[in-house]
Amino acid sequence: MARAHWGCCPWLVLLCACAWGHPKPADLGGQDVRNCSTNPPYLPVTVVNTTVSLTALRQQMQTQNLSAYIIPDTDAHMNEYIGQHDERRAWITGFTGSAGTAVVTMKKAAVWTDSRYWTQAERQMDCNWELHKEVGTTPIVTWLLTEIPAGGCVGFDPFLLSIDTWESYNLALQGSNRQLVSITTNLVDLVWGSERPPVPNQPIYALQEAFTGSTWQEKVSGVRSQMQKHQKAPTAVLLSALEETAWLFNLRASDIPYNPFFYSYTLLTDSSIRLFANKSRFSSETLSYLNSSCTGPMCVQIEDYSQVRDSIQAYALGDVRIWIGTSYTMYGIYEVIPKEKLVTDTYSPVMMTKAVKNSKEQALLKASHVRDAVAVIRYLVWLEKNVPKGTVDEFSGAELMDKFRGEEQFSSGPSFETISASGLNAALAHYSPTKELNRKLSSDEMYLLDSGGQYWDGTTDITRTVHWGTPSAFQKEAYTRVLIGNIDLSRLIFPAATSGRMVEAFARRALWDAGLNYGHGTGHGIGNFLCVHEWPVGFQSNNIAMAKGMFTSIEPGYYKDGEFGIRLEDVALVVEAKTKYPGSYLTFEVVSFVPYDRNLIDVSLLSPEHLQYLNRYYQTIREKVGPELQRRQLLEEFKWLQQHTEPLAARAPDTASWASVLVVSTLAILGWSV
Amino acid sequence: MARAHWGCCPWLVLLCACAWGHPKPADLGGQDVRNCSTNPPYLPVTVVNTTVSLTALRQQMQTQNLSAYIIPDTDAHMNEYIGQHDERRAWITGFTGSAGTAVVTMKKAAVWTDSRYWTQAERQMDCNWELHKEVGTTPIVTWLLTEIPAGGCVGFDPFLLSIDTWESYNLALQGSNRQLVSITTNLVDLVWGSERPPVPNQPIYALQEAFTGSTWQEKVSGVRSQMQKHQKAPTAVLLSALEETAWLFNLRASDIPYNPFFYSYTLLTDSSIRLFANKSRFSSETLSYLNSSCTGPMCVQIEDYSQVRDSIQAYALGDVRIWIGTSYTMYGIYEVIPKEKLVTDTYSPVMMTKAVKNSKEQALLKASHVRDAVAVIRYLVWLEKNVPKGTVDEFSGAELMDKFRGEEQFSSGPSFETISASGLNAALAHYSPTKELNRKLSSDEMYLLDSGGQYWDGTTDITRTVHWGTPSAFQKEAYTRVLIGNIDLSRLIFPAATSGRMVEAFARRALWDAGLNYGHGTGHGIGNFLCVHEWPVGFQSNNIAMAKGMFTSIEPGYYKDGEFGIRLEDVALVVEAKTKYPGSYLTFEVVSFVPYDRNLIDVSLLSPEHLQYLNRYYQTIREKVGPELQRRQLLEEFKWLQQHTEPLAARAPDTASWASVLVVSTLAILGWSV
Repeated sequence: MARAHWGCCPWLVLLCACAWGHPKPADLGGQDVRNCSTNPPYLPVTVVNTTVSLTALRQQMQTQNLSAYIIPDTDAHMNEYIGQHDERRAWITGFTGSAGTAVVTMKKAAVWTDSRYWTQAERQMDCNWELHKEVGTTPIVTWLLTEIPAGGCVGFDPFLLSIDTWESYNLALQGSNRQLVSITTNLVDLVWGSERPPVPNQPIYALQEAFTGSTWQEKVSGVRSQMQKHQKAPTAVLLSALEETAWLFNLRASDIPYNPFFYSYTLLTDSSIRLFANKSRFSSETLSYLNSSCTGPMCVQIEDYSQVRDSIQAYALGDVRIWIGTSYTMYGIYEVIPKEKLVTDTYSPVMMTKAVKNSKEQALLKASHVRDAVAVIRYLVWLEKNVPKGTVDEFSGAELMDKFRGEEQFSSGPSFETISASGLNAALAHYSPTKELNRKLSSDEMYLLDSGGQYWDGTTDITRTVHWGTPSAFQKEAYTRVLIGNIDLSRLIFPAATSGRMVEAFARRALWDAGLNYGHGTGHGIGNFLCVHEWPVGFQSNNIAMAKGMFTSIEPGYYKDGEFGIRLEDVALVVEAKTKYPGSYLTFEVVSFVPYDRNLIDVSLLSPEHLQYLNRYYQTIREKVGPELQRRQLLEEFKWLQQHTEPLAARAPDTASWASVLVVSTLAILGWSV
Repeated sequence: MARAHWGCCPWLVLLCACAWGHPKPADLGGQDVRNCSTNPPYLPVTVVNTTVSLTALRQQMQTQNLSAYIIPDTDAHMNEYIGQHDERRAWITGFTGSAGTAVVTMKKAAVWTDSRYWTQAERQMDCNWELHKEVGTTPIVTWLLTEIPAGGCVGFDPFLLSIDTWESYNLALQGSNRQLVSITTNLVDLVWGSERPPVPNQPIYALQEAFTGSTWQEKVSGVRSQMQKHQKAPTAVLLSALEETAWLFNLRASDIPYNPFFYSYTLLTDSSIRLFANKSRFSSETLSYLNSSCTGPMCVQIEDYSQVRDSIQAYALGDVRIWIGTSYTMYGIYEVIPKEKLVTDTYSPVMMTKAVKNSKEQALLKASHVRDAVAVIRYLVWLEKNVPKGTVDEFSGAELMDKFRGEEQFSSGPSFETISASGLNAALAHYSPTKELNRKLSSDEMYLLDSGGQYWDGTTDITRTVHWGTPSAFQKEAYTRVLIGNIDLSRLIFPAATSGRMVEAFARRALWDAGLNYGHGTGHGIGNFLCVHEWPVGFQSNNIAMAKGMFTSIEPGYYKDGEFGIRLEDVALVVEAKTKYPGSYLTFEVVSFVPYDRNLIDVSLLSPEHLQYLNRYYQTIREKVGPELQRRQLLEEFKWLQQHTEPLAARAPDTASWASVLVVSTLAILGWSV
């Protein structure tokens, strides 16, 4: 789980927000909001004056003969996190929330956003802006039809609308005598001018071979082989998602917060490889690694990023068929390819191939999780000692967590903003503390930590919830039911190619049984030094079917508004299951290696099968993480690990006798004298 | 489950057939199939000569200037079972399978059907017909494009294509320079002429008030109130599904096999009620019951069935908005309503209201299940005595089952063709025995009985699988795992409005665990003397969410090709669940009251919770069915019931699992790796 988005597709954000019951945002130190109904209006100091920039934008609109201009919250690659230079909606409106669309007409300006951001928008926007407490294209178009005259044109930057979003605007405007007009020069950028933050320009580097599952040449050959086998015989694959190009060439950079990507496209044809990026960012070694001085089928020609649309358009003049994944292709590319030359799938072959990790990638991702566990355990041990002193707060805690992770080998920063939430704050969706606004950690409260790291060998994401004092019976029950959900899904055996949606209820059953539930999804894919929320793997209805070699998080939770929040998140590998009767069955192998909080487990709620699973898992943690702690002389942490992975014994009364009988017999079998 | 279709939507049939792994049809006494490649062709005696009728059809096509004519397997109401006079595809092709589309061009004729019917088609069709082993509109259109010239017209009867099917043909033909032409006179009917079986003409009767949940006046008011609350303010609701009209007016007849419906449409406006049917079929009492001699808003005007299209078209001339359920409206009605006057939902408000039974309907449906249990128990007792004699076969058994049901109060025949399958036949999808072709029941084999009844108070559907001898360990294990699946889903507690798709895996988990599964759906809705497969309730992805008051079957199974088949099907009511913490949760209350086969239950596989559930269920059966058996002096059956509902006890060490936990814990404590 992460703060801003959850899953790479924007709808997930909404799902999450809605299902969580629109919890009120954390008290951000006063709800000082604007009041535009007084004269003069009341504007808090947090408001940004947008009059000048709006006037300049309307001038640009006039030049283009537009009645309205749409400013979405996206960038050109459907990135989950977007760069500062892409935060056009935030800049023009003053409202910095991660989700929301702005529309400007010659007379009015308005923002549509979901309930998470209503207060924030009222604190940041001046009275030039209407706030619409709705989302989706339908309310926007309904508003547009009343605000702009018949015959009016609605402009948009085609690189900021996905094919689906464009189709939805187009459908809603059909027959309305208002026209959608694609304008490739972004009008906000023109107004933003020199104030606009620069596009990142750090070096793009190749991963060491030790950290890659295959060479880029092998990957390119693999994609070409899929092209040849495809019924519609595409002549090229076009990659628009940054993670696709990063994965294909084993290249990384740091253009995007938390994601080690760089702005790029790839056009991989049957006879050439064209990588669209800023050439000056490649060192001569990297250019040589890419074999970029030649023009053969295994030479990567670097072309300028800005040329991609023209180049695709020129390529499409030939007798070609271009294979795209429609989920990640923006309308700006789509509109220059004649429909009969398109071969469309929801996801590109790179997206689909990347979803299944080969054995080396699996080993790498597992190794990163062992080191990640060391960092998390160091932090949990430190908390256990320091929280009772009353000196730790959510923010300083998060900073220390990030620091410990940063000290791990191959670390490349956090994989998302650390969620460090104490007490009632843990019940808030998308909560993260700030230096100014945070809560002290206490032995009287539960504490939720959801965090992850980027390492050269893998990306991690883990959530643990702890209590250092005396949890209430309800807290223990809720925690244990969340744990049972995690175990029930993790140990489930299911047929190959089952959709995650069909099985995610196993993570909820123990909660449902008592009338409890959680309002978010149950898990998402994860990459090898790529996205922490790697689509299209997961448990949502539009995720692809489970297959051996995929990694997914498993993260049930429970949230009591105004009191506490629980989430237990592990990353798991999809593996073949050995079943009594032969068949193609799968199960999960958990690769997150941090024990759960014994203080919060009510053993009497666990079945023998749960206990058996849990004790085996703890044994695995000891085997994987123990030696690493010893090797690094982290003896206090080693001792903590041993204590926290002691096998749990059934506490059911009628089993006490069985326990003694069995212990005695086991010891007897082992030849011990009792 | 039933033989011909499963669920009212045609795709379900395919899903079922595909998922079941295309089992070969039962040995129908020789695979004597045609051979069109010899000269002269070889034609078995089962083939129908279609030359004359095809020539006549082509003359009709020529008159209409058609290059091709589509003959679907549907009727005008999306009925699951269709009347003989609607079996146009069967009559023109000779092929009588329940699924398959025929297309005739001036030179060729072809049938598309799924694997269940390939052999049957080769035994029944003469060499005028090509057999295409594919389904769906895409292969049909692909074939059409090669067979008919550019500019050619493809005719179809608009009352036999659903809106969706029409859209799919239309989309596939777009830009191909071939045109779809709607012809309201069915050309096959013209050729069929006087040989065509007559349209049923039995009386249409009103249900006694004792058997209805509400009066038709209350139902009409309820629908009108939904119209008023609807955002788009429809002025009328159009009902095309026969079950909608039957339900709305509490009227029944026997036009359709197994379904007590009559051919009809209803146009319910804000100020009038127009019922399209054959007026001569209503007695004066029924006309008076319908208040049909007046014209006010609570008077039912009977108009002729054949007038529906013209009447709708005329009504649509006014300032009106007609609310339809697109799933059950055929293109022949849809095409006469201007798009801007349509208010569309997937299902009509009648379909949605009917899905949730009120308390009286619940009581009625439950009562019919008690009597149905008596009939099934009588049959099971009889089998127990007679199967060892070697005198019972699948067909005579099915006849006796139907006879016992027929003797129950309020009986109105079976609700589908009884599936009576012994040994390997039970592993075949859609198997039903015939008088000529059937298998003897034996104490050495398992026997599967899937059957149901129509009663004035309710429709039933139950499957039991039994073994009178010594089942193999694998048969017992498989049976017990199917039973666990049934129990796990039946006792599940889940949030209100959960989709069935999200929870159906609970019926599979115990099978999956051992590498077993079943290839069909997990359940379907059921009506009050209506459809045995009442859409849209169920566990498929396109079923609607579960709500209190719905009834669904729960029917996991296991099928071992060539050996045996197991299915345990109960009907269950969705009820509120009492949870420890307050919330809106649901669970199931099983209303089928026949015990499972003790001979096939391996108690050691059941958890204490399963045993507790099962024993409670058995207690309920005793309470519900016992007194009924006693009242009717069915003392042998009463004794049998008591024996078969004896509480099951855990077979000693349910402690095996505890043992392993404790051994594991002990060894772990000792520092052993397990």
